[in-house]
Amino acid sequence: MAYTFNPPKRYLMGPGPSDAHPRVLKAMASPLIGHLDPHFVNMMDEVKDMVQKAFLTKNNLTFVVSAPGSAGMETCLVNLLEPGDECIICINGVFGGRMAEIAERCGAKVHKVITPWGKVTSEQQIKDALKECPKPKLVALVHAETSTGALQPLEEISKLVHEVDSLLVVDAVTSFCGVPLKVDEWGIDAIYTGSQKNLSAPPGLSPVSFSPRAIEVLENRKTKVQSWFLDLNLVKNYWAGAKRAYHHTAPVSAVFALHEALNLVMEEGLENRWKRHYEVHEYLQKELEALGFRYLVDKEHRLPNLNSVYLPENVKDEAALRNTLLNDFNIEVGGGLGDFAGKIWRIGIMGESCTHNHVNMLIGALKEIL
Amino acid sequence: MAYTFNPPKRYLMGPGPSDAHPRVLKAMASPLIGHLDPHFVNMMDEVKDMVQKAFLTKNNLTFVVSAPGSAGMETCLVNLLEPGDECIICINGVFGGRMAEIAERCGAKVHKVITPWGKVTSEQQIKDALKECPKPKLVALVHAETSTGALQPLEEISKLVHEVDSLLVVDAVTSFCGVPLKVDEWGIDAIYTGSQKNLSAPPGLSPVSFSPRAIEVLENRKTKVQSWFLDLNLVKNYWAGAKRAYHHTAPVSAVFALHEALNLVMEEGLENRWKRHYEVHEYLQKELEALGFRYLVDKEHRLPNLNSVYLPENVKDEAALRNTLLNDFNIEVGGGLGDFAGKIWRIGIMGESCTHNHVNMLIGALKEIL
Repeated sequence: MAYTFNPPKRYLMGPGPSDAHPRVLKAMASPLIGHLDPHFVNMMDEVKDMVQKAFLTKNNLTFVVSAPGSAGMETCLVNLLEPGDECIICINGVFGGRMAEIAERCGAKVHKVITPWGKVTSEQQIKDALKECPKPKLVALVHAETSTGALQPLEEISKLVHEVDSLLVVDAVTSFCGVPLKVDEWGIDAIYTGSQKNLSAPPGLSPVSFSPRAIEVLENRKTKVQSWFLDLNLVKNYWAGAKRAYHHTAPVSAVFALHEALNLVMEEGLENRWKRHYEVHEYLQKELEALGFRYLVDKEHRLPNLNSVYLPENVKDEAALRNTLLNDFNIEVGGGLGDFAGKIWRIGIMGESCTHNHVNMLIGALKEIL
Repeated sequence: MAYTFNPPKRYLMGPGPSDAHPRVLKAMASPLIGHLDPHFVNMMDEVKDMVQKAFLTKNNLTFVVSAPGSAGMETCLVNLLEPGDECIICINGVFGGRMAEIAERCGAKVHKVITPWGKVTSEQQIKDALKECPKPKLVALVHAETSTGALQPLEEISKLVHEVDSLLVVDAVTSFCGVPLKVDEWGIDAIYTGSQKNLSAPPGLSPVSFSPRAIEVLENRKTKVQSWFLDLNLVKNYWAGAKRAYHHTAPVSAVFALHEALNLVMEEGLENRWKRHYEVHEYLQKELEALGFRYLVDKEHRLPNLNSVYLPENVKDEAALRNTLLNDFNIEVGGGLGDFAGKIWRIGIMGESCTHNHVNMLIGALKEIL
């Protein structure tokens, strides 16, 4: 009657999830405790402290949404936008497009700054957008576009955004804990990420953080947040309130896993972790180029941990090659999305999947097959 | 630098989560695989099949929301309601009130049927509400009120709802897999539950199911669903479409756990599981009453798996007693919510926590303390 399930041992080198450390899996398998247990509440405080350190922020409203990164995105937008608000959303891949879609569902008027996939948004584009929409409630960008592997510079754009007293909202799903990301120094007002990329915890949670300026906007809303589940006015009393007011039942085991994954980041050190991702990326890049792969993104804006590459010209069927890698070598890499479907691969070296051994396995397998 | 976390071994006898079976914890600790891996996709099909069997439904649109039960509630309401719609929501505890709150945030006009906490909604109340609001888009009830332990009869009310061509929406968070629940036979059009009660998987997922009539309403919406993350038009292509269109990254490990928890339900058999909850409840009730506890809910509408009881008169400080149970005996029971805070306990015997051993531990500890 029961279904047997014995998952294969994979090496996860796609756009996420990445491999989880055995300590993370072990923490997750601890027996459950109640979500209002003093031991759990204390652990939530530790998670908050470590998420603050990993974001490089002192923001008090820093916590973990009990759902995947897409819900983190929705949390940021539904709390800051009200019907009729104007905002600027920069789109250079799937996830910028998703932000615009969500902002429109909030009833906001969205000014889209469109950039070809694989490129990043320039300061000049933001200046032009601010001429068209001089007082946006917020300007949103994707720090690391998971669909293309482009890394968006944020510091100069942040200045432009704050000059007009607008909020800077950033998608850091694929940059958090993998490349330099400095929430306070860069003046980011609302940020969300996911648990399953460079952090190497299982997917399902979304760390977020809000600046005091963002909280002010939140507290001055004229309308209720359209989502009850994601309403920060309620959630913040659970995660950040003096009394842990019951809101929803936290995903206890997933938080155990996140706590241990954050421990691993703290032990390694954030800067060492960034360096590791760059160093392994350099090695992967050299090996891939020697095999005839070509990078989609200009070197200047190339994300180290997610490598988007055109296949060698002699590969006629990229999907068949990915299947061979998965079935014969247990290595997962990602295909392209949207216009790049069938044209590129997205090779992740994120968190626990960011090692020379992973690169050597992948390159060795490709040499055997090609 | 890292935070040590060694959770205590608790016996979870509150309103959820309940104890997880070691097989569930072990399944969850399996190494990750990708959320688009053929092995994972196949397992999602098995999960869907088992959720259908546990709901006793053939509904094709049966799947698992990647977030806790509260998000399952929001999924049902935001997809079926549009601004200006009228609906009837029955409130006899916290969770009916939450449904009304969410429905209002959808822009719906909500007719509230208010019943004292601990009681259930009568057919006559529904008839009266239908006079005031003869064509509601939906009528929503809580099958098992987690805040009070009342079990709502649904069959006769379902007939009234369908006579006016309305949809029946049911909260089954605390009834699913614990007491008789027959989605197709009872004509339930939209239902949500949680993973952490009688199913005894970790909290964080919400199985849901929608009837063909509900899908018709969904497909004839005039406006977009306000939540992108919970929009069934998108999610159904991921869980129920021929091609698994990427929507969000599924919480892989949590689905592993859910799969194994559902396996345990299938092995035991749904009817045997219902019987076990009733049988252990009878034993618990006898023992509690002998100690001077009194039940809040009339016997006829008493939920077996969540026992709401007034404390013996000689207990002056219920919170202190709960703390002693937790700290000295590692047994968690729940306190009261709302008007019942400080007055009642909510004692859960759900899923893996529903054994004579659990009852004997609790009663033995109480006898030692009192």
